[in-house]
Amino acid sequence: MTTVVQKFGGTSVGDVTKIKRVAEKIKKRMDEGKKVVTVVSAMGKSTDKLVELANDITDSPDPREMDMLLTTGEQVTISLVVMALKELGVDAVSLTGWQAGIETEDVHQDARITDINTENLEAHLNDGKAVLVAGFQGVSENGDITTLGRGGSDTTAVALAAALNAETCSIFTDVTGVYTADPRYVKNARQLDSISYDEMLELANLGAGVLHPRAVEFAKNYQVSLVVRSSMEEVEGTIVEEEASMEQNLIVRGLAFEDGLTKITIERLPNQFDTMSTLFSLLAEEGINVDMIIQQNTSDHALNVSCTINTSELGKAIDLLHDNKATLCYSLIRHESSLAKVSIVGSGMVSNPGVAADMFKVLGDEEIELKMVSTSEIAVSAVVPDEYMVKAAESLHAYFGLDANEKAKIEAVKEIV
Amino acid sequence: MTTVVQKFGGTSVGDVTKIKRVAEKIKKRMDEGKKVVTVVSAMGKSTDKLVELANDITDSPDPREMDMLLTTGEQVTISLVVMALKELGVDAVSLTGWQAGIETEDVHQDARITDINTENLEAHLNDGKAVLVAGFQGVSENGDITTLGRGGSDTTAVALAAALNAETCSIFTDVTGVYTADPRYVKNARQLDSISYDEMLELANLGAGVLHPRAVEFAKNYQVSLVVRSSMEEVEGTIVEEEASMEQNLIVRGLAFEDGLTKITIERLPNQFDTMSTLFSLLAEEGINVDMIIQQNTSDHALNVSCTINTSELGKAIDLLHDNKATLCYSLIRHESSLAKVSIVGSGMVSNPGVAADMFKVLGDEEIELKMVSTSEIAVSAVVPDEYMVKAAESLHAYFGLDANEKAKIEAVKEIV
Repeated sequence: MTTVVQKFGGTSVGDVTKIKRVAEKIKKRMDEGKKVVTVVSAMGKSTDKLVELANDITDSPDPREMDMLLTTGEQVTISLVVMALKELGVDAVSLTGWQAGIETEDVHQDARITDINTENLEAHLNDGKAVLVAGFQGVSENGDITTLGRGGSDTTAVALAAALNAETCSIFTDVTGVYTADPRYVKNARQLDSISYDEMLELANLGAGVLHPRAVEFAKNYQVSLVVRSSMEEVEGTIVEEEASMEQNLIVRGLAFEDGLTKITIERLPNQFDTMSTLFSLLAEEGINVDMIIQQNTSDHALNVSCTINTSELGKAIDLLHDNKATLCYSLIRHESSLAKVSIVGSGMVSNPGVAADMFKVLGDEEIELKMVSTSEIAVSAVVPDEYMVKAAESLHAYFGLDANEKAKIEAVKEIV
Repeated sequence: MTTVVQKFGGTSVGDVTKIKRVAEKIKKRMDEGKKVVTVVSAMGKSTDKLVELANDITDSPDPREMDMLLTTGEQVTISLVVMALKELGVDAVSLTGWQAGIETEDVHQDARITDINTENLEAHLNDGKAVLVAGFQGVSENGDITTLGRGGSDTTAVALAAALNAETCSIFTDVTGVYTADPRYVKNARQLDSISYDEMLELANLGAGVLHPRAVEFAKNYQVSLVVRSSMEEVEGTIVEEEASMEQNLIVRGLAFEDGLTKITIERLPNQFDTMSTLFSLLAEEGINVDMIIQQNTSDHALNVSCTINTSELGKAIDLLHDNKATLCYSLIRHESSLAKVSIVGSGMVSNPGVAADMFKVLGDEEIELKMVSTSEIAVSAVVPDEYMVKAAESLHAYFGLDANEKAKIEAVKEIV
């Protein structure tokens, strides 16, 4: 009998009606003769309400106590889903993180899973029960309740799938799968049948928002077959697996983009071994999320460094840099806001060195100014004025053959061959 | 360094302001150099909201899952109180039932504590931390979360006090202590300085509502010194201990009363060994709470049985008795509603056989009809028409020297002696 793991996020369990629907979906899998483990998040906005309570008490809530507080949200959901399953005549049992044997580092609010002791879980599965596991949470070696940080329930699901050697790990969400680009912006965006871990990882990191990067990385490391699919509609989702064979002929698999970025340039830093580490440690300690980083050496051996941050953190970053001018020894700071990042992603790029050049040409032809550029093995990102973000995305989408009609064309060719 | 245990109920932690006040009270005890363990309940109406969610899903929620659901309430409170303590600069840590080592039977919704493993708790106390424990909950041998049933947080506090050999166990509540009678009805009611476990047990069982009987019994068994006091006002409370020595000269320590009762009389049951057990097992299985029971034999060897129940359960009880007429073989049923029970309690009664007679005389002088009577070692209860409840209570209160002015008189006498 094969085991399947599935995960439902906060919006999928947002109210009693939705919880009953999740129970029906679980029943369906049980009726197919599978062993079913289901990971759920806290109901809709319940986590926000708990955070609000904490904020009413203190500006700096203790991390251990935040974990104690927030993990109650998932605990509520698992018990309610089991009640709904029992109402449908399905035997089921709920397990908190510690009851499911999810062991983590002794770190609060962002712990990593160190091990999963599946004994209890497997005993319940062997008894023929549907098992509900509270996502996002675990227990440290000294018995403290911990949480896995953002996207934690995805990670719980993937980790359980790995530990139980599950057939698949389905992530039910509010979209029907992974798209070539965000369909709210790019009208020709279409859903992918499959995508590789690395491509998904780039898309996830680039803000496509369907799956948490950490969960994708975990899935890649343990070769867990992931399926992203809709909790509302009964349609095929997107498979995330090692080799996305179905569409190998596509060099670019998808696009990601986000706006609200600011570029900061710090000019004439001293060219010393510790300059970059000092600078970015300062920003990290202040919790400022730095995305792209570019370093250039001037002809007289100084360093010019540019990076992008969220515009909302600009004030904090500027204050910090000013306060540390003596330490950092730069000559001046410039910044430019109202920027966006557009990225193309595809593992086919590795063997196609001309892709970046093609991308710059497409953007040049549209007279879109490039503010910054960075590349990885399977992605190229360009920072552009945010007013051109959608135009850039649409042009790239069409050029790299991602449009819905293009797919039809490619498939027609395939059939003739 | 002595250890103290204190418990704050749901109304005492009903909102953020009250939680901060509880934190201040804990800080005060810490500043006195005590090791402080605090047990808290769920915030105000939060348990009701969780029950509502469950009821929206099913009419018969699974007991294990109800425990999973409801224990989140106390978990929220402990984390918030610790945050408030840290805000005051007090080092503190929260522990769920299982983290505090509270082991129970493998029973849901009404488990009894079997053992407390204080290792983790004592380690935190020895580190100088204020320890917050989630009331009402524990863990069974097989790792399931359990709850202790009604009054569970009182029981948690008393059990911890016993296990930690605490100096005292203070139960903070919305009254200032234990009264000779409910002050909302009896204007001359006054607060007792002390009361014995047995007296408190009678008062608790008789519906005085300040402390749960189970907690009092636990305290008696382990000789835990209990203090009932106000969470709002800084006043001395009432000490519950083995020998309530301060006021030994009082034969009657207090009065309890409740209305909304119905007396059911079942006439001419067969005089067999199993008649009573069959009858009351039936009522118990249906969840009908029977209070007083009287059995009389008729001259021709049949049995007449009367008992009191809450009027709200009358319909259910009558239906049940009718449905089982063939099994029970009675001739007829009568019932009388709008009744109240008035009880006098005091360990001094044991050696004063005339107390019951005095009580009947007081009620007779007031022309209050006695519908039923029952007695225990330290209590006498009378069922009367509910319109006379308060009058009966006031007359008895005055007669047995419980009125506020009487106390002054007694103390004046003591001083002269």
